[in-house]
Amino acid sequence: MSPKITTELLKQLRQVMKNPKYVQEPVQAYIVPSGDAHQSEYIAPCDCRRAFISGFDGSAGTAIVTEQHAAMWTDGRYFLQAAHQMDNNWTLMKMGLKDTPTQEDWLVSVLPEGSKVGVDPFIIPADQWKRMSKALRSAGHDLVPVKENLINTIWTECPQRPCKPLITLDLSYTGVSWRDKIVALRSKMAERKVMWFVVTALDEVAWLFNLRGSDVEYNPVFFAYAVIGMNTIRLFIDGDRMMDPAVREHLQLDSTLEPEFKIQVLPYGSILSELQAVGAGLSTKEKVWLSDKASYALTEAIPKAYRYLTPYTPICIAKAVKNAAETEGMRRAHIKDAVALCELFNWLEKEVPKGTVTEIIAADKAEEFRSQQKDFVELSFATISSTGPNGAIIHYKPVPETNRTLSVNEIYLLDSGAQYKDGTTDVTRTMHFGTPSAYEKECFTYVLKGHIAVSAAIFPNGTKGHLLDSFARSALWDCGLDYLHGTGHGVGSFLNVHEGPCGISYKTFADEPLEAGMIVSDEPGYYEDGSFGIRIENVVLVIPAETKYNFKNRGSLTFEPLTLVPIQTKMIDVNLLTEKECNWVNEYHQKCREVVGAELERQGRHEALRWLLRETEPLARVQ
Amino acid sequence: MSPKITTELLKQLRQVMKNPKYVQEPVQAYIVPSGDAHQSEYIAPCDCRRAFISGFDGSAGTAIVTEQHAAMWTDGRYFLQAAHQMDNNWTLMKMGLKDTPTQEDWLVSVLPEGSKVGVDPFIIPADQWKRMSKALRSAGHDLVPVKENLINTIWTECPQRPCKPLITLDLSYTGVSWRDKIVALRSKMAERKVMWFVVTALDEVAWLFNLRGSDVEYNPVFFAYAVIGMNTIRLFIDGDRMMDPAVREHLQLDSTLEPEFKIQVLPYGSILSELQAVGAGLSTKEKVWLSDKASYALTEAIPKAYRYLTPYTPICIAKAVKNAAETEGMRRAHIKDAVALCELFNWLEKEVPKGTVTEIIAADKAEEFRSQQKDFVELSFATISSTGPNGAIIHYKPVPETNRTLSVNEIYLLDSGAQYKDGTTDVTRTMHFGTPSAYEKECFTYVLKGHIAVSAAIFPNGTKGHLLDSFARSALWDCGLDYLHGTGHGVGSFLNVHEGPCGISYKTFADEPLEAGMIVSDEPGYYEDGSFGIRIENVVLVIPAETKYNFKNRGSLTFEPLTLVPIQTKMIDVNLLTEKECNWVNEYHQKCREVVGAELERQGRHEALRWLLRETEPLARVQ
Repeated sequence: MSPKITTELLKQLRQVMKNPKYVQEPVQAYIVPSGDAHQSEYIAPCDCRRAFISGFDGSAGTAIVTEQHAAMWTDGRYFLQAAHQMDNNWTLMKMGLKDTPTQEDWLVSVLPEGSKVGVDPFIIPADQWKRMSKALRSAGHDLVPVKENLINTIWTECPQRPCKPLITLDLSYTGVSWRDKIVALRSKMAERKVMWFVVTALDEVAWLFNLRGSDVEYNPVFFAYAVIGMNTIRLFIDGDRMMDPAVREHLQLDSTLEPEFKIQVLPYGSILSELQAVGAGLSTKEKVWLSDKASYALTEAIPKAYRYLTPYTPICIAKAVKNAAETEGMRRAHIKDAVALCELFNWLEKEVPKGTVTEIIAADKAEEFRSQQKDFVELSFATISSTGPNGAIIHYKPVPETNRTLSVNEIYLLDSGAQYKDGTTDVTRTMHFGTPSAYEKECFTYVLKGHIAVSAAIFPNGTKGHLLDSFARSALWDCGLDYLHGTGHGVGSFLNVHEGPCGISYKTFADEPLEAGMIVSDEPGYYEDGSFGIRIENVVLVIPAETKYNFKNRGSLTFEPLTLVPIQTKMIDVNLLTEKECNWVNEYHQKCREVVGAELERQGRHEALRWLLRETEPLARVQ
Repeated sequence: MSPKITTELLKQLRQVMKNPKYVQEPVQAYIVPSGDAHQSEYIAPCDCRRAFISGFDGSAGTAIVTEQHAAMWTDGRYFLQAAHQMDNNWTLMKMGLKDTPTQEDWLVSVLPEGSKVGVDPFIIPADQWKRMSKALRSAGHDLVPVKENLINTIWTECPQRPCKPLITLDLSYTGVSWRDKIVALRSKMAERKVMWFVVTALDEVAWLFNLRGSDVEYNPVFFAYAVIGMNTIRLFIDGDRMMDPAVREHLQLDSTLEPEFKIQVLPYGSILSELQAVGAGLSTKEKVWLSDKASYALTEAIPKAYRYLTPYTPICIAKAVKNAAETEGMRRAHIKDAVALCELFNWLEKEVPKGTVTEIIAADKAEEFRSQQKDFVELSFATISSTGPNGAIIHYKPVPETNRTLSVNEIYLLDSGAQYKDGTTDVTRTMHFGTPSAYEKECFTYVLKGHIAVSAAIFPNGTKGHLLDSFARSALWDCGLDYLHGTGHGVGSFLNVHEGPCGISYKTFADEPLEAGMIVSDEPGYYEDGSFGIRIENVVLVIPAETKYNFKNRGSLTFEPLTLVPIQTKMIDVNLLTEKECNWVNEYHQKCREVVGAELERQGRHEALRWLLRETEPLARVQ
């Protein structure tokens, strides 16, 4: 990896920062955030502006360019990568280290008095704008919105915004029609006395209309906004996608409908002016509901007194609770995914000893097996296929420069998943194709104990996921070990593999309570820098639990694993398991045998079936 | 309990709300908060203004009186009590219920346009003022500070503010001189670039100067403020307490000292004018550090640009980490406390079957035994002595109307503690003096498992206490049970029995990380309304833990119980314990025998010693 040479680009950017064609007054600094206009985690190539200007293409990072300086803020996952990808024009600001200034403090320290700091108001979330604007103002500077994105003015070869065809999902996948979702949304709006709701997150638009797209890699979403009134539906979307007869039929664009279900289709780029018109026409007590993470531009379109901002939108919360059709779809997707992984692991077991399988080959093979399954669409994220020391890099993705050959001497960690039309998967298994050391088995077993502690936990209705995080760590903590990431995230249903508003992490406190029908991952790990990485991840469904008593009639919840892929028993030190844990493993493997075994049989995959049966032999605990 | 008749009082209050002698303009509403000017949890009789105006004397509640209405906000612990103590003039606002309006929303709904809402600026914390003021302003009203407390103007028999003699603590108790504490504080101030620190919490003043008082029941504090500059020390305190030669000597008031350690003693009431003078004299970049919970009056004395507000002050954080002298003192105090409780439980075992011991008699007897111990000062909180159904009332305090006789048929719960000159105790034991039912034993054993899970937990340095809360609940959750309070609170060293900034609770996220030397309680419980209450509470010290490995060299922590009182083995269903839990109980009891046994022997308390030996017989688990 050689750094991107940015001298000329920075010169050009500094010129447009003073060019009256783009800025009303010169700006002394320009902020280039990571995201797109929808605060997406995964973004399209046309939105990779920070990577374009700096060369650093990690998933998180904010660039700030002033007349004299160029600085990049990123977190611990990316210190090394950013240092490699950026040239000497850039200063790396290592977030989380004690002496690293915040963006605001740094700006205040380098800017001349009374400076203007520019940012694209469509990219910066309103809550961030507020914080930064306040800090700058109190130091005598101004944060100003620059309408035209200045990176776009110098990015001559900027790719086009994708505009790919849409997929319509019928009731057998979604369980609820888009009309009924609109009805439910309007009833939530009525409860809160709001008249309008602005849908800005791409997965929320997709979920609401039971449509999917492929504008962003790994996430089956499409670029669009929606504005839902009590009697109107406006969908802001570009291209000829609305010409597709299937889409027209699905959205009933050509039918005679009650006016409140008639969808008005408008150009993607007209959202701001339309919202400004809504804002201008509001009468007293008419509130507009937005996510507090919506862009500054859209938030500002509504006068302050009329805004109703919440951290989680009603769609985000409704989307998280999967209905029976979605749950069944997720089950099917996970069975198919398990079939693919049984094939893969059986193949790896035979091929790895030959010394010909690299991390990239293994990842490609996993994709190949998955793509043979019905309704496969694409992967749900970049496959983490890592062996030996690469396994300790938590967000590793094999590239030719780092690609390592799997061997019988090293632990192999595979974190991968797919989008099927009926569901989204995300599973991590850690394997050894030779003989693991006692220490490797010991660490694996602590991670497994943590995984089981969460998966088998019983907890009251209304419990927030963050209260379960320590269960996953307890066995590791007892021996002085730990892992530096959260334990789980929400998972979409043929949607984003990471979704709010629930999860299992010590880092958050604002998560919504878990309820039956929610789906999260359970993925504790242990990583030894320079040696190996271990992670055991299942996607699990929140289900009601039967308990002996029922305090205050609150009811209890627990988890049911949707992922049904064997956990390598060779890696388990059975003597470290309690009887209860041992039974959990055996029952889990029994279920893998029954459910995935039947599907392997049905698909005629006999060799993989034999592998599954071998790998799911019951553990025997020495008493 | 008959309600207090408040018709006449409310009439008087409504008159002074319009009296130009007290208010610049009439106020249409007047807020009477719970606290005193120091945001104390326990308050002196002269500060019980809300109880005076309403009759409701629970520990939490806010009264608001308008021209037409009088309303009281309180939480679930006090719904019944408030309803009993208040007459028909009052509307009870049940906090935590879905339909209960907030104080702001209620005010907006009942006030005529453009109203003024008055409050004593010395009683309302700055953060509350800010929130309420903003809400009222956005509805067209104004929150205004009323200098003279309007309750005091009508409270003709208001008790005097206490002004009791001080106790000086030498190095053998405190470990660090007040001079060295000032030096450490100034170094924290220099780190944050602040020039002044305002000490507003009573326990922080007491801790800083190594003084104790008895102005407030149960809390060994005295009414005072302090303002620490980089070169000056000002102590605001009333009465002739500064005439006491021991205090003068302790504070070196008559010695020739370096000027920066010379304490300037000023009247308690002059804090505001002195602070205003400090505020007026500040030059650019001179900041003043205050708790964000300091009163609005004191916070306003400092111009906004010069304020440095934090949720926890440096004194609060330093005070929480006990040094060797304090830890040793706490150990001694807990041994003496255990001696008193061995005597008590031995006495109860003999007396309860006679049917003559009531909850109040048992509480008095506990105090009697404690008062026989060296350096006993007073109780550390009102003793919770409760039997049968009273045990399910979490904040129960026996009064003649509720006083129940202990019997061999009911569970008895005693939550009590004392202030000794060398330390503060807080211990809960749950006993049965006859034969507990299988169900009572089952519930007790789940609570015990939770207690042990926290007490024996090993966790990384830097872990916040709230991450341990679920460990205490896991065994209860497994059976569908739970308890509706936090698991632990910080404990002072001959100071307040509840202190920040750490604790073990699902309710908070803003606690400071646990570190070696901190002291918290571990007190899970289970309560069955109308039947019984169970709680097992030890005070525990955070200590370094030895672990097999040491991830990232972070080091690990665990707890050492300071409380050494037998846990009634009769209440334990041994078959529900794991081997590890069983060993924990046996080792704990062995330590009680050794440490407390030796002290009972030394004090010649042979009968109580025999009781201790009986009660600490090792448990035997059936394999």
